[in-house]
Amino acid sequence: MSRIVYLNGEYMPEEEAKISIFDRGFVMGDAVYEVTSVLGGKILEFEGHMTRLERSMRELEMTCALTREEWLAIHHELVARNNIDEGLVYLQVSRGNAGDRDFHYPPEGTPPTVVLYTQAKPNLANDPKAEVGIKVISLPDLRWHRRDIKTVQLLYPSMAKMAAEAAGKNDAWFVEDGAVTEGSSNNVYIVKGNKIITRQLSTDILHGITRASLLTYAAEAQMEIEERPFTIAEAQEADEAFFTSASAFVMPVVEVDGVAVADGKVGRVAKRLREIYLEESLKRAV
Amino acid sequence: MSRIVYLNGEYMPEEEAKISIFDRGFVMGDAVYEVTSVLGGKILEFEGHMTRLERSMRELEMTCALTREEWLAIHHELVARNNIDEGLVYLQVSRGNAGDRDFHYPPEGTPPTVVLYTQAKPNLANDPKAEVGIKVISLPDLRWHRRDIKTVQLLYPSMAKMAAEAAGKNDAWFVEDGAVTEGSSNNVYIVKGNKIITRQLSTDILHGITRASLLTYAAEAQMEIEERPFTIAEAQEADEAFFTSASAFVMPVVEVDGVAVADGKVGRVAKRLREIYLEESLKRAV
Repeated sequence: MSRIVYLNGEYMPEEEAKISIFDRGFVMGDAVYEVTSVLGGKILEFEGHMTRLERSMRELEMTCALTREEWLAIHHELVARNNIDEGLVYLQVSRGNAGDRDFHYPPEGTPPTVVLYTQAKPNLANDPKAEVGIKVISLPDLRWHRRDIKTVQLLYPSMAKMAAEAAGKNDAWFVEDGAVTEGSSNNVYIVKGNKIITRQLSTDILHGITRASLLTYAAEAQMEIEERPFTIAEAQEADEAFFTSASAFVMPVVEVDGVAVADGKVGRVAKRLREIYLEESLKRAV
Repeated sequence: MSRIVYLNGEYMPEEEAKISIFDRGFVMGDAVYEVTSVLGGKILEFEGHMTRLERSMRELEMTCALTREEWLAIHHELVARNNIDEGLVYLQVSRGNAGDRDFHYPPEGTPPTVVLYTQAKPNLANDPKAEVGIKVISLPDLRWHRRDIKTVQLLYPSMAKMAAEAAGKNDAWFVEDGAVTEGSSNNVYIVKGNKIITRQLSTDILHGITRASLLTYAAEAQMEIEERPFTIAEAQEADEAFFTSASAFVMPVVEVDGVAVADGKVGRVAKRLREIYLEESLKRAV
């Protein structure tokens, strides 16, 4: 049975969900998105993702009339209609269809294009990769410089994941001016002694919702946090490495550019943080 | 009457031309494009644009089975069906519809999405702006670092054109590491003494088709060309400034960041190069 997806106010089978060839998301990459996880049929980090969505749209002078209550109702409706126990809800808002291609934004009042759909991921919480950790390569960070805005201009992250796969690894970490910015679709961390080290927020990286919660939970657990850039060499010499993202939660990284991190096994801190994160975010799921 | 557009092998009214919400062009910015000008019902610089299209696709490991003859036939069919005397043909190829969202490229054999449509521009050759020149502001170049690949990740150029308009000007020039890279959708030049100065080709800028032809015609006309980066200050102190693009040909720039270039009037070299370019490219139009 095909998925039921949401497009501009209507629920429909996925095959029928079509947009104009003039949509700004298709011709200009002029669209923002969010991905939220579903565990036990409930939405994780809903408020955080909505706050970031609103910020992305504000930064781009994009508007959408849906309220948080309406967004949540759509999420719940899609989860129910598609019987999602564990999985994701993907949400995209583009600046809409201007009726023709033009670099200039369409006239005020042009309705945005709003798309939401689910992806079933039966082993989201118990991802076997979290047991053994993942391996990453480093690549130069060639993305645009407003990475704090979550746009669909994802070609380079896509190219990076293909390059990682071609190298027999799981993912890529981006490097700029000698330091790691972030992973191809996640925020990255190393552990050295008692410290969790992760790059500070700026326009250089995505302001991860999972990152924000994780740092709060880590601080509550008396862990020390240092927000600063780190290098690939530091990661290779760290006690542990991991990344966070909305769909992978906390994922251990056990190899960086062919070098094992510590003994190449999943570390104690990453393992514990994954447990804490899942426990705490489930408590707050809606 | 609505335009007839081309989508995946079929000609149809523009309102009916729709793509899946899972198209890689919509969810990942994973699409390339070309724009060619039409004058007197003929296509300008066709071979150049096809060569660049093929290069963009090759760089991105994207494939499309259409031959040059087939591309040309589609261009001609659209020009005929829409009675285009002067205007543009827009062409976009995305990596297609993978049936779901995934950073990884869809399986080999997934057909690309191919879209072409015309835009009527009755005064393309006799653009009144070419008589008085345009005014530009400078902005930091925040785009990704493979600007030699002509992708639809055009949000920043779009933001830049809106910023220029908000400042009461016509366009923006991008600056990186102290030097001008290019305009928001064009290659840029200054004239100093007998020299035409323009940035050399690299991954920092688009390899303009109009640029390549213009440099050939300028060399044939015994003009001296220096390919190197230049600064905004140099542009402000130049004898002339101009840009080239497929849809604007050669366009004089008479003000940069509020400072008039020379006497603020269209210069002799830009005017002459525009004439030569139009004459020569019309000769080769197909």
